[in-house]
Amino acid sequence: MEIVKRLLAGDRKAAARLMSLIENDASQAPRLLGALYPHTGRAHIVGVTGFPGTGKSTLVGELTKKIRAQGEKVGIVAVDPTSPFSGGALLGDRIRMQELSTDEGVFIRSMATRGSLGGLARATGDVVKVLDALGQDLIFIETVGAGQSEVEIARAAHTVVVVVAPGLGDEIQAIKAGLFEIADLFVVNKADREGAEGAVATLNYLLDMNQADGDRWRPPILKTIAIRGEGVEAVVDALKEHLGYLKESGQLELKNRERSEGEVKRIIEEALWGRLLSRLKEGEWERMMLRIADRELDPYTAAEKLLESSGDTGK
Amino acid sequence: MEIVKRLLAGDRKAAARLMSLIENDASQAPRLLGALYPHTGRAHIVGVTGFPGTGKSTLVGELTKKIRAQGEKVGIVAVDPTSPFSGGALLGDRIRMQELSTDEGVFIRSMATRGSLGGLARATGDVVKVLDALGQDLIFIETVGAGQSEVEIARAAHTVVVVVAPGLGDEIQAIKAGLFEIADLFVVNKADREGAEGAVATLNYLLDMNQADGDRWRPPILKTIAIRGEGVEAVVDALKEHLGYLKESGQLELKNRERSEGEVKRIIEEALWGRLLSRLKEGEWERMMLRIADRELDPYTAAEKLLESSGDTGK
Repeated sequence: MEIVKRLLAGDRKAAARLMSLIENDASQAPRLLGALYPHTGRAHIVGVTGFPGTGKSTLVGELTKKIRAQGEKVGIVAVDPTSPFSGGALLGDRIRMQELSTDEGVFIRSMATRGSLGGLARATGDVVKVLDALGQDLIFIETVGAGQSEVEIARAAHTVVVVVAPGLGDEIQAIKAGLFEIADLFVVNKADREGAEGAVATLNYLLDMNQADGDRWRPPILKTIAIRGEGVEAVVDALKEHLGYLKESGQLELKNRERSEGEVKRIIEEALWGRLLSRLKEGEWERMMLRIADRELDPYTAAEKLLESSGDTGK
Repeated sequence: MEIVKRLLAGDRKAAARLMSLIENDASQAPRLLGALYPHTGRAHIVGVTGFPGTGKSTLVGELTKKIRAQGEKVGIVAVDPTSPFSGGALLGDRIRMQELSTDEGVFIRSMATRGSLGGLARATGDVVKVLDALGQDLIFIETVGAGQSEVEIARAAHTVVVVVAPGLGDEIQAIKAGLFEIADLFVVNKADREGAEGAVATLNYLLDMNQADGDRWRPPILKTIAIRGEGVEAVVDALKEHLGYLKESGQLELKNRERSEGEVKRIIEEALWGRLLSRLKEGEWERMMLRIADRELDPYTAAEKLLESSGDTGK
C-alpha cells in the first residue's frame, strides 16, 4: 500500500493522512492498520496523567526537548481536553508549544473526545500504532488523571507517569482516585511551591504502605519545575530505567499482550453493535424505548427482546 | 416475589439484600429488576460531581439533613472512591457521616469501583432503581468529576450539581474537563476561602459565553460552606426549582428516556460478550492473543476471526 510505504519511510504527511483516514472512516482501519501492524512494537509508550493544573503538558514538552537532544524521535498524543497540545489551553501555553511543533522529529496529535469511550480508546491506540510505525522512539499519551476511562487509557502504556502539584488539593485524594496502583513513576511538579516536600513525604509513606514484598519496582518520586526545565533530565533517566526493568523482567511482553487484548475487545464490541443495529427492523429500537418509558417493559426484558429480534438466539 | 413486596413496603433490609443479590449474581438481576421496575420513576435523581477535595460528600451530607427536615426520604449512592460514604475518606469524615446512617429515612450505598466501566454504570443504575422503589424521594449519586466515565454516570441523573472549591487549582481547568456542559447547578463550596468571589465571577463569565439563545435554564451559582451548613438551604431550593423546570419543559421525560436507553445498551453489551466467549473453543482467545504478540496477526484481523469462530456470520 503506497501510503503505508511512505509512512514506513518516515513521511510525516503520510502519517497525518493515515490518522485522518482511520479516524474518519472506520471501514478502512482494518486494511490500513493490518498493513502497518508488523512494523510496530518498537516504541516506548509512556502515559502521563494527573489532574488539570498539575502542569502535565509543560512537563511533556520539556521531556520531549531533552529526549530530542539525545537524538530520539518523539510522538505526543493528547487525550486531555485541557491540554495545550489539544488546543484546550490558554494562548500562552499554546505559543510555548509551537516551539515543539516545528521540530521534524516531534509529531503531535490531539484526540477528539467526542464519541464513545471505547471509540476514544481505540482511536488512541490506532494513532499510537501509526506513530510507532513512523519510527517515533518514545510516544507520550497525555490524559486527565481521574476517571476510570482515562486511567484505562493510561494503563495501556508501558510506563505510567502520575503528575501531582503541591497545593493543588490533596495528593492523597488524587492518588486515591485510582492513580496509585497504575503509577510507575511519580512527578511532583511545581516543586518550588509550598508543600512540595510534604507531597513527596506523603507519597513515600503511601508507597511504603502499599508496596508488596514481591514488588521489584518501586516507583521513584521526582521533583520538577517543568516550566524552567528543572529536574526534567532525571525524569528522562527514570523513564529509560523503567523500560529497562520492563524488558529484563518480562513485564514488557505482558503489557504488550494486555494492550492488544484490549484492542481486540474494543474492535469486537463495535462490530457486534454495528451488526445488531443493522439487523433490527426500522424504528424497533425507538419503539422499545417508548415501551420502557411507559413502564410497560423493564430494560432487561427490552434488551432480551432486542437481542432475539436481531437474530441472536441465545446460548 | 416476596423480597420485592417487602421492598415496596419500605423494608430497608430487603433493599440491602436486593442490592447484594443484584450485584453478586447478575443472572438474578433481570427477574428482580423486572419485578420492581413498574414501581420506579418517582425519585428525583441528583448527580453530585467535582474533583476530590472540593467537599462533595460534606455537601451531600448537609443537603441530606435539610431534605430530611422537610420530611422527604433520601438515598445516597457513592461511586467516588474518595468519598467518606464509600469508606475512602479519613476517619473524621466517616464519623461525621455516621450521624446520617442512623437515620431510618436515609439509605447509603457505596459502589465498588472494581470491574468494568459499563458494569459500574449498570450497577449504579440498578441500585438507584432499588432506592426509587423503596420510596426514597431524592437520590444523590456522588462521583469524582473528571473522566468521561464519571461524567457519563453523572449525566444519567435528572439534575447535575458540579462542586468546585476556590484555591483548589483552577476552576476553569476543572470546568474544561467536560463538566461545564452537564452542570445544572454550580456550587462554590468552601466559600470562606480566598478566591471564592473570583470563582463565582469566572463561572458567570463562562456561562455568559456558553449560554445559547434558546436555553431556558441558566445554571445558578451558589456559594456554600458545607462543613458549617451555610448556604445549603439555597442549594436544596435550587434542586427543587430545577426539577420543576424539567417537568414543565418536558425535559424530565427526555432524560428518563436517555437513561433507559443507556441501561439497555449496557445490558445488551454484557449479554453479547457472554455469548461470544461461551461459543469460542477452549484456549482460542489466548491463542489468538499470542499470534498478535508475535505480530503474525493484527488486532483487526484477530477480531474478525474470533467473531467468525463464535458463529457470527457478519452481515
